[in-house]
Amino acid sequence: MRKQGQAARKIMRFLRRCRHRRYHCCWCRAAAMSADRLSSVSKEAKPESVSLCPLDPAAAPEQELLCIFGTGDLGRSLGQRLLHSGYRVVYGSRRPQSCGPLPQGAQAMSHEAAAQSASLVFLCIHREHYDFLENLAPRLQGKVLVDVSNNLKKNLYPEANAECLQRMIPGAHVVKAFNTLSAWALQNGPSDANRQVYLCGNGAEAKQAVAEVATKLGFAALDKGSLSAARELEEFPLQLFPEWRMPLYVALGLTAFIFVYVVIREVVYAYVEQGEDDSFRIMVSLANKVFPIVSLIMLSLCYLPGVIAGFIQLYIGTKYRRFPDWLDRWMLCRKQLGLVALGFAFLHMVYTLIIPIRYYVIFWSSANTVSKIRENRTSVFDTTTAWRSDSYYSMGILGFGLFLLLGITSLPSVSNALSWREFSFIQSKLGYLTVFFCTLHTYLYGWDKFLRSYKWHMPPAYMLSLLLPSVLLVLKLLLLLPCVDRSLTRIRQGWERTGTQDGTGKPLLT
Amino acid sequence: MRKQGQAARKIMRFLRRCRHRRYHCCWCRAAAMSADRLSSVSKEAKPESVSLCPLDPAAAPEQELLCIFGTGDLGRSLGQRLLHSGYRVVYGSRRPQSCGPLPQGAQAMSHEAAAQSASLVFLCIHREHYDFLENLAPRLQGKVLVDVSNNLKKNLYPEANAECLQRMIPGAHVVKAFNTLSAWALQNGPSDANRQVYLCGNGAEAKQAVAEVATKLGFAALDKGSLSAARELEEFPLQLFPEWRMPLYVALGLTAFIFVYVVIREVVYAYVEQGEDDSFRIMVSLANKVFPIVSLIMLSLCYLPGVIAGFIQLYIGTKYRRFPDWLDRWMLCRKQLGLVALGFAFLHMVYTLIIPIRYYVIFWSSANTVSKIRENRTSVFDTTTAWRSDSYYSMGILGFGLFLLLGITSLPSVSNALSWREFSFIQSKLGYLTVFFCTLHTYLYGWDKFLRSYKWHMPPAYMLSLLLPSVLLVLKLLLLLPCVDRSLTRIRQGWERTGTQDGTGKPLLT
Amino acid sequence: MRKQGQAARKIMRFLRRCRHRRYHCCWCRAAAMSADRLSSVSKEAKPESVSLCPLDPAAAPEQELLCIFGTGDLGRSLGQRLLHSGYRVVYGSRRPQSCGPLPQGAQAMSHEAAAQSASLVFLCIHREHYDFLENLAPRLQGKVLVDVSNNLKKNLYPEANAECLQRMIPGAHVVKAFNTLSAWALQNGPSDANRQVYLCGNGAEAKQAVAEVATKLGFAALDKGSLSAARELEEFPLQLFPEWRMPLYVALGLTAFIFVYVVIREVVYAYVEQGEDDSFRIMVSLANKVFPIVSLIMLSLCYLPGVIAGFIQLYIGTKYRRFPDWLDRWMLCRKQLGLVALGFAFLHMVYTLIIPIRYYVIFWSSANTVSKIRENRTSVFDTTTAWRSDSYYSMGILGFGLFLLLGITSLPSVSNALSWREFSFIQSKLGYLTVFFCTLHTYLYGWDKFLRSYKWHMPPAYMLSLLLPSVLLVLKLLLLLPCVDRSLTRIRQGWERTGTQDGTGKPLLT
Repeated sequence: MRKQGQAARKIMRFLRRCRHRRYHCCWCRAAAMSADRLSSVSKEAKPESVSLCPLDPAAAPEQELLCIFGTGDLGRSLGQRLLHSGYRVVYGSRRPQSCGPLPQGAQAMSHEAAAQSASLVFLCIHREHYDFLENLAPRLQGKVLVDVSNNLKKNLYPEANAECLQRMIPGAHVVKAFNTLSAWALQNGPSDANRQVYLCGNGAEAKQAVAEVATKLGFAALDKGSLSAARELEEFPLQLFPEWRMPLYVALGLTAFIFVYVVIREVVYAYVEQGEDDSFRIMVSLANKVFPIVSLIMLSLCYLPGVIAGFIQLYIGTKYRRFPDWLDRWMLCRKQLGLVALGFAFLHMVYTLIIPIRYYVIFWSSANTVSKIRENRTSVFDTTTAWRSDSYYSMGILGFGLFLLLGITSLPSVSNALSWREFSFIQSKLGYLTVFFCTLHTYLYGWDKFLRSYKWHMPPAYMLSLLLPSVLLVLKLLLLLPCVDRSLTRIRQGWERTGTQDGTGKPLLT
Repeated sequence: MRKQGQAARKIMRFLRRCRHRRYHCCWCRAAAMSADRLSSVSKEAKPESVSLCPLDPAAAPEQELLCIFGTGDLGRSLGQRLLHSGYRVVYGSRRPQSCGPLPQGAQAMSHEAAAQSASLVFLCIHREHYDFLENLAPRLQGKVLVDVSNNLKKNLYPEANAECLQRMIPGAHVVKAFNTLSAWALQNGPSDANRQVYLCGNGAEAKQAVAEVATKLGFAALDKGSLSAARELEEFPLQLFPEWRMPLYVALGLTAFIFVYVVIREVVYAYVEQGEDDSFRIMVSLANKVFPIVSLIMLSLCYLPGVIAGFIQLYIGTKYRRFPDWLDRWMLCRKQLGLVALGFAFLHMVYTLIIPIRYYVIFWSSANTVSKIRENRTSVFDTTTAWRSDSYYSMGILGFGLFLLLGITSLPSVSNALSWREFSFIQSKLGYLTVFFCTLHTYLYGWDKFLRSYKWHMPPAYMLSLLLPSVLLVLKLLLLLPCVDRSLTRIRQGWERTGTQDGTGKPLLT
Repeated sequence: MRKQGQAARKIMRFLRRCRHRRYHCCWCRAAAMSADRLSSVSKEAKPESVSLCPLDPAAAPEQELLCIFGTGDLGRSLGQRLLHSGYRVVYGSRRPQSCGPLPQGAQAMSHEAAAQSASLVFLCIHREHYDFLENLAPRLQGKVLVDVSNNLKKNLYPEANAECLQRMIPGAHVVKAFNTLSAWALQNGPSDANRQVYLCGNGAEAKQAVAEVATKLGFAALDKGSLSAARELEEFPLQLFPEWRMPLYVALGLTAFIFVYVVIREVVYAYVEQGEDDSFRIMVSLANKVFPIVSLIMLSLCYLPGVIAGFIQLYIGTKYRRFPDWLDRWMLCRKQLGLVALGFAFLHMVYTLIIPIRYYVIFWSSANTVSKIRENRTSVFDTTTAWRSDSYYSMGILGFGLFLLLGITSLPSVSNALSWREFSFIQSKLGYLTVFFCTLHTYLYGWDKFLRSYKWHMPPAYMLSLLLPSVLLVLKLLLLLPCVDRSLTRIRQGWERTGTQDGTGKPLLT
């Protein structure tokens, strides 16, 4: 007869276990609520919400009690927000009596007492002070520990804070969360870059419990997988555009080089050879030479790794071997290269459009007309020049328009809505069309000047920008030759030149 | 021996309970299906889907039966969509025989019968008519009640509709959902602003069940927490840009004031003093004075609350005291202020670029050249003016480019992808750079005019726009002084001047 | 006494069943882990991760073993990524000994052995080769089968691959997932259009298990509902802007027609009648006639179906009858029509802004001044022309600004953040304002030319573009008449003219 009781107790224990993890049904939840109520430490009741629903705990749930370790900035900010969102909060502190001002309504107690009173404990303490938790380990068994900590620098420790914590207190369910939010957002709720709470952890129920708190605080919870993602989450708030660095350095270097080049060629040359002071041209004329050149070079740099990869794959005859590291890194920042190029192209466009309202241009165009009259010159309208000038502008505008389209489809929300066939159609097909238009625009700009206007043996600056895109377009054309294209397509479908499998028949099959 | 049976029955009851909440496993689901099948009221079978899978109910699930209370517009729209998505639908109505045309395939019955037949009941009725539900309470025990209702105005009732419902029928699991969709989207599926179904409720399983229906209807379900969020969800469809109102009023007021100012100064003055009719200048010339002025003032208004907050924190010596209400509200609409300013800046840019194609400008530039010839004047090229004019344009373009960047990073999908360190780098560092460029642009525009061209003692309009950004930049510079910056940083890390804790050592620790 | 054991065993079996579906709690998970460990086939241990946590399996989970059927491109790419993310991988193959090079660390075995060793099986095989799975059905009972397959064309089979699979192996839990990713993304992790793993299936636990794998691989998992959504998922990677096709064809057709029209009217006419070669005008002047005309027509086409639908609803007296098919399809591509129109408007704007820097314009403006001097003509400033020209530009700029605003609110992330009241305010109210501004812009452009400048009886091209928007605005005004508006509003709230219910009292009630 005792065994029967055991079976029943087993079920009850199972249901009770649910309570610590997730409330599977309202029945469990109600039970959990009353348990919480018993162990409650904060005495302020909310009579109005209770009166609305005297019968059912699910309708107006007793406020849940959460525990926060750490009365520093993060701890206080988080506590304030939790209280504001209808939770009860108890702080765990080394000196409960003198831990400084706490948010109104919260209570401070010893770590032990605080831990015991709640099933969810937020750790708002620096990693250096984790040691004391080891003594608390028995009290934290089965609790959800939310690690909110961040480090001051990357790679300070070999192991992520949250992983270290899980190792120290194996019986707890450590969840890394809330660390990507600013203290301001923790205190005041979601704002622009603080809408999402990324979380990771090994227990699905623990994560679910934390996600519910985050949702109630107004944030969107995003599961990033198991605790091995903790390092990534801890590095997230420390990063400052890591993937933009290389492209920005390239842009900076190119800008500096081209700027010096055109200053020497246009300003210094004029000063030395003709004694003219053209330095005022730096602000607009020269800037408007630098921007398009840098833009076109960076646009080519954005598409170059793709063709290089194609040739490498053709050469090694398989797609499964990794590319050299430099190529991998280059390919990963193609989007950033393109967007920086788009920024320069935008500046080029606006700088071009203000040409006719510049004092310099207005002065000389008027002076030109005046001198024409005084010297009784007549100029003849040249249809070829009209064609060339108009085509040159047209190509530029169409190229910029396509470039803008590429930029718009790079917006996260737009690219997420595209299938990758659509995305690669735009970024590849339309991308090469953009390169083509912009290159043609530059060739039409140059026309026949490339032979004549050398100064100090320096070719015009625009010629520097033509090298890379021309090479890129030639290489791409080579890859588009039917025989080459066929080989490459086969390789990209998994065929390997030297493999045991010939792959022509059923490349995707067992 | 009876006790043994009790244990087994307990398990069975537990499993059966699952059926009402969530299908924990396919086995439960299959059982639930057959239960549904028995209580089914709609007789149309789908033979083709059954024939595909004669063995396993999971492969071609029997269509679930859902109940809708209310045969009005929302009820009918929702029913049509549910039927279209493969659910069976039964309507609960006071007059099942004469409730008007229902979607094809749906059946109408009394409220009692309809409620009994399904585990999920949609309430598409106005709140004023909730009374009859109280009598149905016993039939709705354990059911999921989806409250789709909206009110005609905000704050009509002290309590959210869904909360009132939960109070009335405590035994049901009330979920607020689908109310943010238009009837059109309910009938025809997701469209632009109708892709997401926000839901809230106290029971996780009930929410999960509703989320599954929403997903099957093609929407993305977004959990907004417990039922206390219902009021927010009910106010959502009623709102019309609440956070844009203040910025738009400010923009409107500023535009009106500056417009009247420049009309008096440019048009009325010329008419009264010189008898000229310059009124045609209103359309472009004066508009292009109003836009940049309003833009620059609003850009400053966007950054001013930040520095004011800094000075307040320095003064009161803590970051935990709340700011005055006006400052709080001001800070919350900074983004909108900035975006409205960007709109005005965009108009300013385009209005500037069309200058050379205006009839007025073409006429006078030609007339100017003609008079130069006739009067045999010669003008000398002034390098300083060239420098000034070009710098003025350059600053404007760079400022606008940065401003555009700020605007792009305000797009929800972009700001969500940034860490808050990145976001605040852009919005703060680059933001002040934008203010600096735009202010410099305006100073260069004014140059030495600010002393000369007073008309009726009214300074040129651009001088009005310089006041706020100049003050802002000076205040910001003060905050950047090393000693001030250090104090402020400490305060923002949680240090309090008069607190018991000195905080210099371990500001974040217990 | 045996019955007692049965009760206990029942519970144990229930818990064990959890193991195959989802790990309900850490206890189950730990048990599952050790079970996995026992059946493990891959022998490489990861000693360092184990040493960190000798006590608790939750802290450093034993790597899960996953099975992949198919050693083709997809299978190998997926396997590589799984191994990289810390899973153990075993391949099922017909020829385990000679199935070609596998990712390092993976093992190949017979299908039977592979299936037995893991609870999650990825199927990376073509649908034509599904047959062999029927013999494996007993081994796949209770397993989660992830169908990654895609077809080469749409509508190749009457049934989705995943649904066919579920029918063949009813005892397995088929989940369609990962098929929308490119092989490149499968191998290298998320990239722009490959961030989301859409999944669908009938078992919530099976989907959850697959979602966890996807999360761990770095993707965001998005539940698309039951297996009936599989067809949609299978068609997703094959689609290439299906909803953009019609708008693009319309744009192409219109562009071609208008282009031929203006070429005949401007170039051919001048050549035939005056013997002038104006062909150079094609590149900019004529393009800048084509773009605004196509843009305005397409903008009207974007709003026309709305008013047509209004008139149809007024005529048939109900909103519940479906619109004719052509109208439905038209309404579904309104957004795309508008965005294409915006693209053309953008080109129009830039083509207009470059006018003053064109060689042609500079030449003739100078020649004009010169001839004015030589012939001693004086022109008089015409205030009306100044008003007209400035108003014309102003309307164009304001129209374009509003149009841009419509475009920005069409971005998925922006429209998702709006309530549909806000969205429809912008797209409808501001949309018609845009149409009004743009139409007025065109009327002001034409002014009084529409009577004079017929060439070969062909009216100026801009007149072609005025027809549709004028009709649209008149129809919209009719719908805004108070009496018409009232009827339409009632219909749109669910009232039906000939229904049994008169609806004036309580249109939304039972």
